[in-house]
Amino acid sequence: MRASAERIRQDIETIAGFSSSGPGTNRLSFTPEYWAAVDYVAAQMAALGYERKTTLHGNTRFRKRDADWREPAVAVGSHLDAVPRGGRFDGVAGIVAGVEIARLVDDSGVRFGRPYELIVFAEEEGARFGSVLAGSKALVGRLTHRELGLMKDANGTSYLEALEERVEHASTALGSVFGAEDVASYFELHIEQSLVLEAARVPVGIVQAIVGIRQYRVTYSGVANHAGATPMRQRRDSLAATARAISAVEELAAASPTGVMVGTVGMLVNEPNAANVIPARTVFSVDLRDTDVAALAEIGERVQETIKRIADERQVDAQVTLTAESAPVVLSSRLRDALIGSAGRQGIAFLEMPSGAAHDAQEIARVTDAAMIFVPSIAGRSHCPEEDTPYEAIALGVDVLLGAIRETGKRAD
Amino acid sequence: MRASAERIRQDIETIAGFSSSGPGTNRLSFTPEYWAAVDYVAAQMAALGYERKTTLHGNTRFRKRDADWREPAVAVGSHLDAVPRGGRFDGVAGIVAGVEIARLVDDSGVRFGRPYELIVFAEEEGARFGSVLAGSKALVGRLTHRELGLMKDANGTSYLEALEERVEHASTALGSVFGAEDVASYFELHIEQSLVLEAARVPVGIVQAIVGIRQYRVTYSGVANHAGATPMRQRRDSLAATARAISAVEELAAASPTGVMVGTVGMLVNEPNAANVIPARTVFSVDLRDTDVAALAEIGERVQETIKRIADERQVDAQVTLTAESAPVVLSSRLRDALIGSAGRQGIAFLEMPSGAAHDAQEIARVTDAAMIFVPSIAGRSHCPEEDTPYEAIALGVDVLLGAIRETGKRAD
Repeated sequence: MRASAERIRQDIETIAGFSSSGPGTNRLSFTPEYWAAVDYVAAQMAALGYERKTTLHGNTRFRKRDADWREPAVAVGSHLDAVPRGGRFDGVAGIVAGVEIARLVDDSGVRFGRPYELIVFAEEEGARFGSVLAGSKALVGRLTHRELGLMKDANGTSYLEALEERVEHASTALGSVFGAEDVASYFELHIEQSLVLEAARVPVGIVQAIVGIRQYRVTYSGVANHAGATPMRQRRDSLAATARAISAVEELAAASPTGVMVGTVGMLVNEPNAANVIPARTVFSVDLRDTDVAALAEIGERVQETIKRIADERQVDAQVTLTAESAPVVLSSRLRDALIGSAGRQGIAFLEMPSGAAHDAQEIARVTDAAMIFVPSIAGRSHCPEEDTPYEAIALGVDVLLGAIRETGKRAD
Repeated sequence: MRASAERIRQDIETIAGFSSSGPGTNRLSFTPEYWAAVDYVAAQMAALGYERKTTLHGNTRFRKRDADWREPAVAVGSHLDAVPRGGRFDGVAGIVAGVEIARLVDDSGVRFGRPYELIVFAEEEGARFGSVLAGSKALVGRLTHRELGLMKDANGTSYLEALEERVEHASTALGSVFGAEDVASYFELHIEQSLVLEAARVPVGIVQAIVGIRQYRVTYSGVANHAGATPMRQRRDSLAATARAISAVEELAAASPTGVMVGTVGMLVNEPNAANVIPARTVFSVDLRDTDVAALAEIGERVQETIKRIADERQVDAQVTLTAESAPVVLSSRLRDALIGSAGRQGIAFLEMPSGAAHDAQEIARVTDAAMIFVPSIAGRSHCPEEDTPYEAIALGVDVLLGAIRETGKRAD
């Protein structure tokens, strides 16, 4: 009972066709192309005997028609929405993995000890309504119905208004918020979106933890002056100060004792931004991530101190604002052990690794046991048309996942 | 015979009124407000017995009606055009100084040994036709009539077309290109546009040399990746590389043996410029200036080497283009000595200093003896509505200038 790379390829290519325009995949939540992708998945699942329910928040859940929705399930989930000009694999790989598992179980006649559920989370990317993980957050009660009504897209349409265009699918039969009584074990397969697996030539990553984030916005304000006429010692150059801060972020992150911390200055806007004028105002972002909450707090403090020390030394003004913060999420050791056991039994090489990106699993982990596996991203590319993953690697990931699901589904865990 | 700060104030405030709109001064070359400013100067000079001639290139020259235009003059010059939203003093202070000298000479009945000439250079700022020092370059033969015909403003009007709207003033009686046979000694007073004089609390700067410039445009190309998912060691971050280059430019310039070198990264554009994406492409300017041609060449080479070394270390691609280059101009030691002697005799404190900005004097210095003095810029501000200089400081500058002119005009130099 091995997953079929060919069926996975067909599913992913078909879903890639549900895109409003090219290049790349353009499929925002609750658009016709989004529902076309959900409908395709629903058709595959219906052929295997699964019924579809749409939650009040626009997530789509599938269980066998004869299953009891009140019984705790073993679930696989991910998302079908895409960032503009995105790729074919982000989210889709995880949903297709869940469909393939349903097929394999159907083919083999194997029954799990628990109902099997597939979940399509809405608005994971936040690309339409501006807030990432919106569907999974709502499902675990961290976004209220009221808040979904206030989230608007670029045209002023709210999340709920957009959803209600397809309201015939929404089911009030399901509780508005779900927990361990609904899903006992949650698994998510996702593309890695980076280079670690490719560099290690390993097809599967088993995620230990999803990193926490501290994101700052820094503004250095100096004085614009003539680049020729102002001696080096009389400058209050906001960009020269920023250069020191960027290097400090890089050094502090690389030297973190956890060894997995990353620190990035991705955004920088400089004013007045002319070759012959000393910069007066530079705004930049600092993004720190680590799986260790104490390390994140400590390096966050040191980065802020360093930013202020640089400002003092250079007589520029520094404003530092914390713009985003999330705590690291350690994934279920029970489910990780099941994944490790499954890979080991099947002789599939794997790495244990952190996830540097946010995923729906981190929300589900708040209410029940959750685990994730990664499959390699070719050249680490993601959120772009070049995003790619070998179908064989996804199939190996499904094999690992299925082994773990059979193990956990079998036991009275 | 001392210059009048009050008359200087009146002239500068009147000329500030010739502006197309506010805030700040808006007076591009060859616009109605530009000619209104020239006409105001011409009226002041006419009252003192001076006639006006407009050169083929749109520069305006004034000599006494009874003077011989074929005799080498002692001249004072600067410009009346302004950058958009500019200040009231840039260029204007130098023209008003020349008018005030004509007044003082008229009041005193003193005659110089040479004809006194005032020159208003056109398009010094390059703000209308895109090329700085255009009028003075044309006057010394470094821009041809044909080239002026090809220089266009934002509306597609050429330099010559704009000039010809006032062609009745153009005089073909003057040679199209001028040299030492026309002007034996050229002096220019200009606001400093930086902080050196103010910091030293000295009212007058005597310019030793105008810096040469090497300006580069650098593009670092790396790879965009997820800021969370990509370990520090697997990054090819174009902005992190740029941060190192900015610091290197600052350090190399500050450590230059000449002690006057300045190095600036004023312009930086980063892509894709999102907080959660590792930068893939960063474009930035490097502007190096020094009065020493060898130092400029050497540090220019070291900056380029460093930019390439950083790229190699970080596996990013570097493209470096030389976008501007000009040689330093050492000003006339004879005229500098005359200025120093004049200041000394009058007990006026001065600093000898380089000019980090370009001025018409550097073009005139190619064909005859030229010198410059600076007066302080309050808070170093220039090219903005806040540009300011104490009128008393301009008056002291005029006193130094007049003493030097009397000295050089007297001698058969």
